[in-house]
Amino acid sequence: MVKRNRQRGRPRSLDYVPPFIERKIPYFDFCSLEQLEAIEAHVDWLLAEVGVEFRQDPKALDILRAGGVDVQGVTARFPNGLARKLCATIPPEFTQVARNPQKTVRIGGRNQVFAPAYGSPFIYDLKHGRRYGTIADFNNLVKLVKDLPYLHHSGGVLVEPCDVPVNKRHLDMVYGHLRYSDKPLLGMITAKERAEDSVDLAKIVFGADFMQQNVVIMGNVNMNSPMMIDKVASEAIQVYCEANQAIIVAPFILGGAMGPVTTPAGVAQALAEAMAAGAFSQLVKPGAAFVMGNFLSSMSLKSGAPTFGMPEPVMSNYMIGQLARRLGIPLRCGGSLTAAKICDAQAAFESADSMHATALAGANYVLHAAGWLEGGLAMGYEKLILDADRLGGYQRLLSGITIDSNSLAADAYQEVPAGGHFLGCSHTMANYQTAFYDAQMSDSDSYEQWQENGSKTAAERAYERMKTMLDQYEMPPMDVAIDEAMLDFIGRKKAAMDDAWY
Amino acid sequence: MVKRNRQRGRPRSLDYVPPFIERKIPYFDFCSLEQLEAIEAHVDWLLAEVGVEFRQDPKALDILRAGGVDVQGVTARFPNGLARKLCATIPPEFTQVARNPQKTVRIGGRNQVFAPAYGSPFIYDLKHGRRYGTIADFNNLVKLVKDLPYLHHSGGVLVEPCDVPVNKRHLDMVYGHLRYSDKPLLGMITAKERAEDSVDLAKIVFGADFMQQNVVIMGNVNMNSPMMIDKVASEAIQVYCEANQAIIVAPFILGGAMGPVTTPAGVAQALAEAMAAGAFSQLVKPGAAFVMGNFLSSMSLKSGAPTFGMPEPVMSNYMIGQLARRLGIPLRCGGSLTAAKICDAQAAFESADSMHATALAGANYVLHAAGWLEGGLAMGYEKLILDADRLGGYQRLLSGITIDSNSLAADAYQEVPAGGHFLGCSHTMANYQTAFYDAQMSDSDSYEQWQENGSKTAAERAYERMKTMLDQYEMPPMDVAIDEAMLDFIGRKKAAMDDAWY
Repeated sequence: MVKRNRQRGRPRSLDYVPPFIERKIPYFDFCSLEQLEAIEAHVDWLLAEVGVEFRQDPKALDILRAGGVDVQGVTARFPNGLARKLCATIPPEFTQVARNPQKTVRIGGRNQVFAPAYGSPFIYDLKHGRRYGTIADFNNLVKLVKDLPYLHHSGGVLVEPCDVPVNKRHLDMVYGHLRYSDKPLLGMITAKERAEDSVDLAKIVFGADFMQQNVVIMGNVNMNSPMMIDKVASEAIQVYCEANQAIIVAPFILGGAMGPVTTPAGVAQALAEAMAAGAFSQLVKPGAAFVMGNFLSSMSLKSGAPTFGMPEPVMSNYMIGQLARRLGIPLRCGGSLTAAKICDAQAAFESADSMHATALAGANYVLHAAGWLEGGLAMGYEKLILDADRLGGYQRLLSGITIDSNSLAADAYQEVPAGGHFLGCSHTMANYQTAFYDAQMSDSDSYEQWQENGSKTAAERAYERMKTMLDQYEMPPMDVAIDEAMLDFIGRKKAAMDDAWY
Repeated sequence: MVKRNRQRGRPRSLDYVPPFIERKIPYFDFCSLEQLEAIEAHVDWLLAEVGVEFRQDPKALDILRAGGVDVQGVTARFPNGLARKLCATIPPEFTQVARNPQKTVRIGGRNQVFAPAYGSPFIYDLKHGRRYGTIADFNNLVKLVKDLPYLHHSGGVLVEPCDVPVNKRHLDMVYGHLRYSDKPLLGMITAKERAEDSVDLAKIVFGADFMQQNVVIMGNVNMNSPMMIDKVASEAIQVYCEANQAIIVAPFILGGAMGPVTTPAGVAQALAEAMAAGAFSQLVKPGAAFVMGNFLSSMSLKSGAPTFGMPEPVMSNYMIGQLARRLGIPLRCGGSLTAAKICDAQAAFESADSMHATALAGANYVLHAAGWLEGGLAMGYEKLILDADRLGGYQRLLSGITIDSNSLAADAYQEVPAGGHFLGCSHTMANYQTAFYDAQMSDSDSYEQWQENGSKTAAERAYERMKTMLDQYEMPPMDVAIDEAMLDFIGRKKAAMDDAWY
């Protein structure tokens, strides 16, 4: 009864996946109001008394000083809730326009956007094992993400293309996103000129005029916790904000190392650091699109190594979600995080607990939503495919349920007697095609069928799916003149630089 | 700095795990009040107009009739909210006393109790693969569960001991729980005399007088959805309630088969069915300890097979949690559920999403919290070990956080400068031992260390852990006379029956 021909029998509309999530379900409020206020008072104290150092960037200190921030040496202190006041001009939500307008996303408010993992030097797949990433891997990942419907965003450094010189790879990566995908993207941030090149490449595709009014590219930069913003971060903020584009600034705190070992302290410090960065962004350009990042992990008692998918970061996701909503600032947090080296049960347990909390917490932009392995040291091809399939489940969950006469199905009980079955009844026939999320990577066959199909693990099925997807990939259309202009820009930039390998 | 000798260096109190969870965090309210009221109105309609059939048990019909229920043929209808009124005498929480009083649990209210998977005919481990369960497997599982601290309950049919005749295996299973574990247990329910034998064996251990005032054994029985309670269920309710013991009654609804295909209808039907059973339990014995069960699954569009860990059952967990709290009746729902055949990434993804929602939903008693594979057809040794390790994370999550001057750690910033690290600071030294959940089965080593240790999957590590645990198992003490009395009872019962194999 539920068999059908997916190619022919199914109306097109059933396959439509919205380009981002408009959350329909309530938030999970983990902390009480009293607890939130205690954290916020501590945040204000950290900003007013401890302060945040802005290092190696005298221009940033000038901007802060001119904005009324108390600057002593390189330390910026924000007395009397000044950071909070400055953050008030941050837009609670904004649009990032994609090259394909049907893939444009809203970031902030009740919207939630999933993006792939970022920044791994290593790549992993079942056939070739673990190795350094290449630009070929990078472009493969762009292509896969383009065709994974529950990844709403193309992301940024999908893997480090280690075969390209360090000072040139940003050009190839931004080109890869813009050419092989039509989803929104992250630009690069590792040096001021690389951030500028990212914005300039976007101008070739979207037009400088359009970018005066529209966000089309976003940077993502880590702070140097505890309580420090280095030049890489402060310059990235300046480049993206001055160009009317968006910036995510993320404290990365391994509890007990870059912040205190207790979870409330880590959450408070992360919030203070992000607010200092947010305040700075608004001094650079009032009204600039800013996303408050957050990356908190726990630690192994045995080795001091970071751990993922554990209850403390799960709690911190729920907490920071509440705090960000009270501030009205878009939030990046969480992801499908794990310390596992391969795509085994550990990887999936940790990733699912991490991502379930990320989704429920209301994270507006989720970096690392798919592909992350080994504490971020490796991007996994199979992990990308499996995580992305689970993301469809969270998209469904966040879309909530409708309770009405159809969904309560009173009529069905006229048709089906006690002890009977609903398999062929009219209500089932009218609703079965949309009743359940259709996970592509979950095998629900019998043990015998599964054996007949080769007794494959989920990772083995994902490897095959990845190969098929790459075979079936189609490049999105692009005006030849635009492509040539990008390649010309990249060629000139590369010709002007010697190769740097570190 | 965080290295230590687990055997010597750690105060005993840090290893203490409470015998059940007293939830400290808020509930996640997924549905609005309006939505809940719409479901409840539909539940009342189902109970008043459609009714629930009580089949093959004339005594049950007499009990219902005497209680004012509208009985026509075998159909019981509950007009004007009668089921709701009858359910009002169900205790909102109760104590199940364990053989070891330190392992006694509270079921209901804000308490949450995790129990292993139930009812699989097959057993799986990495070395021997999939095969029918035996009594040796069953007893191994009892022993493992005894020593897994985040499984609070010994459960019931941990695997079907298929080498023991069907009509005799209940005796060996109840004996196994009572002899090899000291945690609370489930008795058997597959026939009236087997339920009675279960209660009688408990009497030998706990004493008949003690059981007049205390719950020491609980039955768990499925209804025959839709809208039907067969003789097995109605007799199990009578046996356990009349003996002042507890009973869980669980509708098992695969959406589109035993209930309508839409999630709100499945939730409403499950609630109506459980309330009919609950009302019946209170007519048998007002004030009897009753747990409202709930088992809702989704369906594969490709094959019609049940699927697990999908967003619709996740939503139904959150919904039924709210509805049960409004009724004030203890709830069993969810578990670490999966359709995967082996303990791979699919198994873990599905189990974690299912169990995260189960935990947050406030399920008071969670059957299938560890070990479940293949839609319940197989119990996995490795899955049991890995699931149970994740349960510790949920126990930690549900225990919430403390926000105070120690956890906010203001003093630490006097000691650690901007850009510094907290690894050796006083606050870290004072807090690190209890700051993070110490997952035993998650490998957070470097890739190189992991390779040196044999590049083991999580399932391979779990197999080794299982072997070690069985080697180190110690039988809890028991008075020899009690043991002999149980064995004598079992011997006499078995001698009076021919073997039945179906």
